Amino acid sequence: MDSVNEPAEGLVVGVDSGGSGLRVALAEAAGGTVLDTLTSREPVRTGPGGISAAHFLEQVLPAVRALRERAATGAAEAATGRPVLAVAVGAAGMATLGDELRAELPGAFAEAWGVRRLVLAADAVTAYAGALGQRPGAVVAGGTGMIALGTDLASWRRADGWGHLLGDCGSGAWIGRAGLEAAMRAHDGRRGGSAGLLARAEKLFGPAAGLPGALYPRTDRPAVLASFAPEVGACAAAGDPVAADVLARAAAHIADAAEAVCPAGPGALVALTGGLFRMGDPLLVPLRAALAERIPHARTVAPAGDPLAGAVGLASALATGTLRLPDDPSLLALFDGGAA
Amino acid sequence: MDSVNEPAEGLVVGVDSGGSGLRVALAEAAGGTVLDTLTSREPVRTGPGGISAAHFLEQVLPAVRALRERAATGAAEAATGRPVLAVAVGAAGMATLGDELRAELPGAFAEAWGVRRLVLAADAVTAYAGALGQRPGAVVAGGTGMIALGTDLASWRRADGWGHLLGDCGSGAWIGRAGLEAAMRAHDGRRGGSAGLLARAEKLFGPAAGLPGALYPRTDRPAVLASFAPEVGACAAAGDPVAADVLARAAAHIADAAEAVCPAGPGALVALTGGLFRMGDPLLVPLRAALAERIPHARTVAPAGDPLAGAVGLASALATGTLRLPDDPSLLALFDGGAA
Repeated sequence: MDSVNEPAEGLVVGVDSGGSGLRVALAEAAGGTVLDTLTSREPVRTGPGGISAAHFLEQVLPAVRALRERAATGAAEAATGRPVLAVAVGAAGMATLGDELRAELPGAFAEAWGVRRLVLAADAVTAYAGALGQRPGAVVAGGTGMIALGTDLASWRRADGWGHLLGDCGSGAWIGRAGLEAAMRAHDGRRGGSAGLLARAEKLFGPAAGLPGALYPRTDRPAVLASFAPEVGACAAAGDPVAADVLARAAAHIADAAEAVCPAGPGALVALTGGLFRMGDPLLVPLRAALAERIPHARTVAPAGDPLAGAVGLASALATGTLRLPDDPSLLALFDGGAA
Repeated sequence: MDSVNEPAEGLVVGVDSGGSGLRVALAEAAGGTVLDTLTSREPVRTGPGGISAAHFLEQVLPAVRALRERAATGAAEAATGRPVLAVAVGAAGMATLGDELRAELPGAFAEAWGVRRLVLAADAVTAYAGALGQRPGAVVAGGTGMIALGTDLASWRRADGWGHLLGDCGSGAWIGRAGLEAAMRAHDGRRGGSAGLLARAEKLFGPAAGLPGALYPRTDRPAVLASFAPEVGACAAAGDPVAADVLARAAAHIADAAEAVCPAGPGALVALTGGLFRMGDPLLVPLRAALAERIPHARTVAPAGDPLAGAVGLASALATGTLRLPDDPSLLALFDGGAA
């Protein structure tokens, strides 16, 4: 097929796979304009070999077929299709649970679409690419957890993302946990308590003495803790100094992570992505101050796009030979077999 | 039996039931001198109705029979035995999981030994009675968890003991968790890290990046975290400022709990009990300073005895009509049916 050697006429596929499901986008190789997307609410299973390649392909191959059919302008084109020149997959757990994907996806995509150019990336990398594209800087992804990823385009640096007991400092689970601790302090009459947080905790979870019984038997404890973070934000917004202090400490932790990964040179960009930052001013005001103190040389910008947009951007860069983000065995694995 | 009305000739039973098993003591009612003890390494099971009364009795009834036989001076006495005048049981989880014990033990003990005087206490209460006897003050029990209990002999006050996510501030799990967070900070290059703690964490648990995989799948996460607390102590003793700061913060939290429960009047005593305080000076030096600042009117004393001694003391006080510690529906339930 001649068109394979003319990237401008080819397509790329981006995939974002996470705990709440999987999204697939079909885009123009040149420029990365998204033509269409499909969403599956079924998260890819994790088996003994890590993230299941079979379950991943069961969802992605038919989705791409459907997207290509919908994108085709006529019956003849639908039969042959414009070629897929590159694929980029961002997946939660890719660094530690991605062995099966790295072993099986290159062959499977080559067989299905003749595509030889593939990027398998950690979800933090697609979040980075979505937020900042291929520019040097740092991206903090915050939700129930918290991880910071930075690059000077020569290598990646990662900070935190170690989970609710070892880190995720400043995350939704961290803020919620600290808020509930302050509620229990008020219940006990210990210093550092907040009657406002206690009232909100009892409204959400019932009497304070029953909180341990409501939390510890759950298997989704980090999510339960994080569900209290918006209450901490609202309580701080209402003037509660203990809640405001929790958010000031969270902001300092988040800035610590950004500082650890942000390249030193001038022109570095910082972006904050994820649901955590929808809390708004009670967190963002102290966070802006902490970032200005920790990394005054960096400029904070709004994220340009989401992780799916990041995957599409990576695939487009790979297809057009313009990939600048550095490869890394666990964060950004590059398979470039050239044109089919 | 005439001897029932002569307490000086009677016996009492004390029981200490916890996560590592159960201990039973037979003692003189008057004075509480312990004659003999038996230990079972089988923790009492917890079922749908809370702590299992049947499993508890399966262990305690034969143990008391054996202790009475061993204490008897002759064959005739062994057959009838000196009467058991009172029983005191201290059990971990009594406050929240003790309904079945409170419902079934009074009848079971009356039937087995004709005893009508019974105390069912939270393990924190027997720890209190063991450490301070029946004097007003505050006792901090620290191990994997941390709880403070205080009384002015009119009522009880409790602080913390809410578990590793909601509190237990300053406990072994708290110190270990903070130490591991500082290790991961060093691994990431974030502020607040300690290379010394990182080296100790990797020696104990393997490479830092594998720590989440080593911790989160465990069901005994608080114990795993607490297993790192002695390393934090040793690291602080070796001059590491980050480890020393972790212990200074732990000390402040422990003093917060003691302050919240300690009676205000002069003459209040404070005792620290449990394995946490075997860490010695790295924790005790800042803790003494924090206690002196928070509750200058209270005098810190060494605990007189352990929770089993506390149970024996409660039983002896009950048998001799000298119980001064206040009753409380969940902390110290009193069943006083008089002499059989």
